[in-house]
Amino acid sequence: MNGIDILVSEVGPRDGLQSISQIMPTAAKCEWISLLAAAGVREIEVGSFVPPSVLPQMADTAELVVHARTIPGLEVAVLVPNLRGAENALAAGAHKISIPLSVSETHSLKNVRRTHEQMLDEIRAIAGRVSALPEAQRPHFEVGLSTAFGCTLEGPVSEDLVVRLAAAAIEAGAAEVGLSDTTGYANPAQVRRLVKKVWDAVGREKLNGVHLHNTRGQGLANALAAMDIGITTVDASMGGVGGCPFAPGASGNIVTEDLVFLVEAMGLRTGIDFDGLLRAREYLCAALPDVEIYGFTPEAGLPRGFGEQ
Amino acid sequence: MNGIDILVSEVGPRDGLQSISQIMPTAAKCEWISLLAAAGVREIEVGSFVPPSVLPQMADTAELVVHARTIPGLEVAVLVPNLRGAENALAAGAHKISIPLSVSETHSLKNVRRTHEQMLDEIRAIAGRVSALPEAQRPHFEVGLSTAFGCTLEGPVSEDLVVRLAAAAIEAGAAEVGLSDTTGYANPAQVRRLVKKVWDAVGREKLNGVHLHNTRGQGLANALAAMDIGITTVDASMGGVGGCPFAPGASGNIVTEDLVFLVEAMGLRTGIDFDGLLRAREYLCAALPDVEIYGFTPEAGLPRGFGEQ
Repeated sequence: MNGIDILVSEVGPRDGLQSISQIMPTAAKCEWISLLAAAGVREIEVGSFVPPSVLPQMADTAELVVHARTIPGLEVAVLVPNLRGAENALAAGAHKISIPLSVSETHSLKNVRRTHEQMLDEIRAIAGRVSALPEAQRPHFEVGLSTAFGCTLEGPVSEDLVVRLAAAAIEAGAAEVGLSDTTGYANPAQVRRLVKKVWDAVGREKLNGVHLHNTRGQGLANALAAMDIGITTVDASMGGVGGCPFAPGASGNIVTEDLVFLVEAMGLRTGIDFDGLLRAREYLCAALPDVEIYGFTPEAGLPRGFGEQ
Repeated sequence: MNGIDILVSEVGPRDGLQSISQIMPTAAKCEWISLLAAAGVREIEVGSFVPPSVLPQMADTAELVVHARTIPGLEVAVLVPNLRGAENALAAGAHKISIPLSVSETHSLKNVRRTHEQMLDEIRAIAGRVSALPEAQRPHFEVGLSTAFGCTLEGPVSEDLVVRLAAAAIEAGAAEVGLSDTTGYANPAQVRRLVKKVWDAVGREKLNGVHLHNTRGQGLANALAAMDIGITTVDASMGGVGGCPFAPGASGNIVTEDLVFLVEAMGLRTGIDFDGLLRAREYLCAALPDVEIYGFTPEAGLPRGFGEQ
């Protein structure tokens, strides 16, 4: 990947903000996205094409895509729950479209009101629309296997089912799958095992990314486990925005700042400048004064002499 | 190790409490230690033999050793800053004595007012006292290489110096050395590299443990890195007591509960029962109502169906 080892994919504007009731103005979101990109963040999930009645915070996703597309070198990603959302994403010009396929069918029915088969139908339909576009206009189409490490409703999920759904998603036309620890249930041994199983089934190039939550404090250990075996994309949310990482049920994404420190401290390159990241963080704090912003590394500061060796 | 894979060594009564000004009554400390042991904790650092004028919280260490020794199977550890402290530890009957040898000499002078050479003299003297005892009465004598991953005063420390001091400590008569990330500067790549370098110098059996802080949120990732390559003892503090893990300069030990979850979730055995751990945690919360108690896993709860597979 162009001069970097690990792609830190910022999902704060989507996974972070979606659980905040206070609406962040579109202009502020645009500025935050610009500051993130200025710090060197190369991929940002800017929003989700869901009905505004369901998630009012995501109502301006099309505008955010248009803004983010003006930033050179930035991969503009969005989440979509179905074909209709994907059509909106295509119309707006997103570079990357992700759709969740929940391994827990109970969760899938609650989250998107569709069974596995119905979701695979949506995936096939979206893949059809994408492939009908001229090659230069085709977005990268990814399926995020949510609850891949366990479900708050079903408990443990079958690893064989994760593998089968990964293969089915690729078969249905997705360019790639990702593994999501939606519930913060994952452990490092499971991360390594499951990534390898999915690689065996669909090929290593079809699974590059993980989406981890820090609900039980295991987020960075799980990220390390994933990167150790060769995962190159890790999602994170600036300031863990949108959910106290301590609270059950909260979003609790990995904190971008702590992940960037982890990666850079190990001598791997994210392409992200920590000072720039702190400027984006400061902006976010000011824009959302009532929202708690987390992060160990920003609170403690970088180690003395960090990066000077 | 008797039916366990990873020894989680509880340092809360020492490293946790030493930075709390409110004195925890001796009887409450004894009960907490008993509850920890009842949960399956096999090694507890119960206190530190420092002058009470320096750390009033540690004034009852001898009493705690006497109490903890009555608990079958429990390894009773203490910290000592010098020979005099070691003599008190021997008199009280501690099973394990640790002395800090700070890789940063600046830190050593601030912390124990001694240079490296002076500390090595203390280590030699303590080793002499220990070896003069009948074999059955000899405590395990360990040197903790503090600031081994960097120092808030000196910045980065030389890895060669860590290796040289480890070798010098073994040469001076320590049975074992440990690596301590006193400042929360460590990263997983550094942990692996430094452990291997020290192993090469002193032999694998002379370095089994790491003491990590979570100051920058990297504690469990560093613990994972250490365990991956074969470290079998990891220090932790219940509830991260004694320091907000977010605050610079704070103790910020790894939280025992989160470490136990990490290890057990991976299918490795700590011998520790999570419910028992929560009972000890509840007791601690009640005994220190004004002190904040941390931990992701206790807040979120264990995953649904955890341990039933």
